[in-house]
Amino acid sequence: MTNATDFPLGRRVMAMIEDLAQHTDEPGRLTRLYLSDAHRRAADATLRLMQEAGLNAHIDALGSVIGRVEGANPGAPALLIGSHIDSVVDAGRYDGNLGVVLGIVVVEALKRQGIAPACPIEIVAFGDEENVRFPTNLSTSQALAGRFNPAWLDGRDQDGISFRDALIRFGGDPGGAAALARDRARYRGYLEVHIEQGPLLEAKDLPIGIVSAINGITRARASVIGEAGHAGTVPMNMRRDALAAVAEMIGIVERAGSTRTDTVATVGVVQVQPGAINVIPARVDFTLDARSPDDAVRLAMLQDIVTECQAAAQRRNVSFTIEPFMESPATPMDKGLIGRLEEAVRCLGIEPLHLSSGAGHDAVAMANLCPSAMLFVRCKDGISHNPAESITTEDADVAARVLIDAVKRIAA
Amino acid sequence: MTNATDFPLGRRVMAMIEDLAQHTDEPGRLTRLYLSDAHRRAADATLRLMQEAGLNAHIDALGSVIGRVEGANPGAPALLIGSHIDSVVDAGRYDGNLGVVLGIVVVEALKRQGIAPACPIEIVAFGDEENVRFPTNLSTSQALAGRFNPAWLDGRDQDGISFRDALIRFGGDPGGAAALARDRARYRGYLEVHIEQGPLLEAKDLPIGIVSAINGITRARASVIGEAGHAGTVPMNMRRDALAAVAEMIGIVERAGSTRTDTVATVGVVQVQPGAINVIPARVDFTLDARSPDDAVRLAMLQDIVTECQAAAQRRNVSFTIEPFMESPATPMDKGLIGRLEEAVRCLGIEPLHLSSGAGHDAVAMANLCPSAMLFVRCKDGISHNPAESITTEDADVAARVLIDAVKRIAA
Repeated sequence: MTNATDFPLGRRVMAMIEDLAQHTDEPGRLTRLYLSDAHRRAADATLRLMQEAGLNAHIDALGSVIGRVEGANPGAPALLIGSHIDSVVDAGRYDGNLGVVLGIVVVEALKRQGIAPACPIEIVAFGDEENVRFPTNLSTSQALAGRFNPAWLDGRDQDGISFRDALIRFGGDPGGAAALARDRARYRGYLEVHIEQGPLLEAKDLPIGIVSAINGITRARASVIGEAGHAGTVPMNMRRDALAAVAEMIGIVERAGSTRTDTVATVGVVQVQPGAINVIPARVDFTLDARSPDDAVRLAMLQDIVTECQAAAQRRNVSFTIEPFMESPATPMDKGLIGRLEEAVRCLGIEPLHLSSGAGHDAVAMANLCPSAMLFVRCKDGISHNPAESITTEDADVAARVLIDAVKRIAA
Repeated sequence: MTNATDFPLGRRVMAMIEDLAQHTDEPGRLTRLYLSDAHRRAADATLRLMQEAGLNAHIDALGSVIGRVEGANPGAPALLIGSHIDSVVDAGRYDGNLGVVLGIVVVEALKRQGIAPACPIEIVAFGDEENVRFPTNLSTSQALAGRFNPAWLDGRDQDGISFRDALIRFGGDPGGAAALARDRARYRGYLEVHIEQGPLLEAKDLPIGIVSAINGITRARASVIGEAGHAGTVPMNMRRDALAAVAEMIGIVERAGSTRTDTVATVGVVQVQPGAINVIPARVDFTLDARSPDDAVRLAMLQDIVTECQAAAQRRNVSFTIEPFMESPATPMDKGLIGRLEEAVRCLGIEPLHLSSGAGHDAVAMANLCPSAMLFVRCKDGISHNPAESITTEDADVAARVLIDAVKRIAA
């Protein structure tokens, strides 16, 4: 039982999360794609929360909500804190939103404590982190880092609506993206708190952890082509079964991910042709998602996977092709900021666990602008991108206290 | 080059095959499902071919075309020769049709040779061998064997049309199925010639082979349920990846089929949920098709597959269920008839190769009525159920000569 007097910061976080969770494009479940009506309403609500916290806030040309408090020394490089308020389809309520409201909670707490931060603080609610609606890649945070790609504006959603048109409808300004680029001399760092989206903190019985790096990712599509045949009449030793070959390759991928430290390798999609109970599969397409905090390790893992799959294909007399279509290098978090987060975690008597982030985050883009770091908050059963996504009020309170302490240290 | 004077029987077979191949429900490809308009036209064409050969022919209550010639001794038990004229979707032209037209060619040849067969001969063109349209199992040949299941009449095709209604529309008589059952004392045997649908004869460089048994089949649906998770954030050793488990099971199935003599075991369908590149698969459904000419071997193979899959599931902490939904025992062919076929094959200077049939045939049903046997004809690359299905005129000629000789021996 949580009493009304327990975990006041955690309860404040949960109240704001609850507020934002109302804004959805689909009744009965949370879906808030970039530049949708629900995104607009959530941005307006975020703007209001920021203004109520005393921030000088606005919604920028790409729909990000940005609030600033000048602090004791308005000329000093600012500290950015944020995350995103867009969501996947049928999402949980914490992914992204948690990092935004924690930023606001920090500003509220400093104000309540009568502390003017030593440097300006900017809270930011990005809009395009999930990259679900348009073929973009962290467009709103890349804009701040000066890396917005104007070609993204021509991308279309599944209804054929372009990013450009959706942005105009949202109230944004397609021509204003370039001007969002920040002067890197004016920023000292970016902090993002996010749910872990994995089970490690829960397994270690820790409320919070410090991200050491955001994993690099390779994604690829692979195909095996064998030969169809009647499942009753072609002897086993005369078969060129594409599915049996891919089964062996899935084993290769699993072993490649398992035998290295901190790597993961996943086959998530398998499509079998013709896909009939009595026909030997002629062709199987599958996907590969391989990640590591160390780019050299990831590339070596990939090379091993390709080499072993080629050998299996040759032995089975089937063809094998693999085409990587996404390569995202690892993003190490800033050592200086990690040190401050570690001090803040220790101050609460919590062992500072360092873990890599398997998922991408706005911090990947922001690391191009300024030193960046992330905190992970324990989430129930490691579940995310799902309505069952859940954190405790107590853990939200811990996250708020760690962040407030860290901001004081970093701003100083 | 085939000269006009070469292989006259083979050319006659090919001409009739060509005639029947015109009747399709889909322009541009051969699709002739049971009781369709194309099936009706093909049945009428078959009836005409039989009548032209001097057979007393009719289309029965279930759409099978049956022609009879009384021979020298009308009271003697008759010899049945036949196969089917229905097809799969996008079929080849030889599967089924070959065995029907060869029966007609036999009658034509005997007539041309001025030989009255020693016993009556019935040629039959069954209509429901592929079991593609309705949930039946060899309904038209089972009817002759007295095993027509009246519940089949309530089965529906994918457009919701019942077997009963389709039969009435075809011009058949749903109430007449039971009366089709033959008196077994009046039949001495059933012969069916069919394309091999496999690569063995081609590999052995033989035009024809003798079927020793039609394999027993077990078909089953299996499911593995693990746990979905983010492909980037769940460490390999904490995963319950349903697809990785099924990949191991596909390997188990492949080994189980490969390590025994004359067995095959196939996974033809795999469906992955949720099936996203960045999500660890939560559930995978797959099918199993396992066959052997020896029922004890098939059941032992199945038991091994289930035991090993259960062990893999337990080790991986995923659930595994498997439900057999079709069990068809093996059908050994009649030794007496096999002996006659062997003599006829040897007479052409061909080594009589005995092979099991991996696919089911009307002979499975007819073996319930009378001694049954089958000949296989070499087909190009072992391909069937495909427009690329092909046999040579020379091999068709060999098949006709073997069948004519065998019929003389069996009728005597």
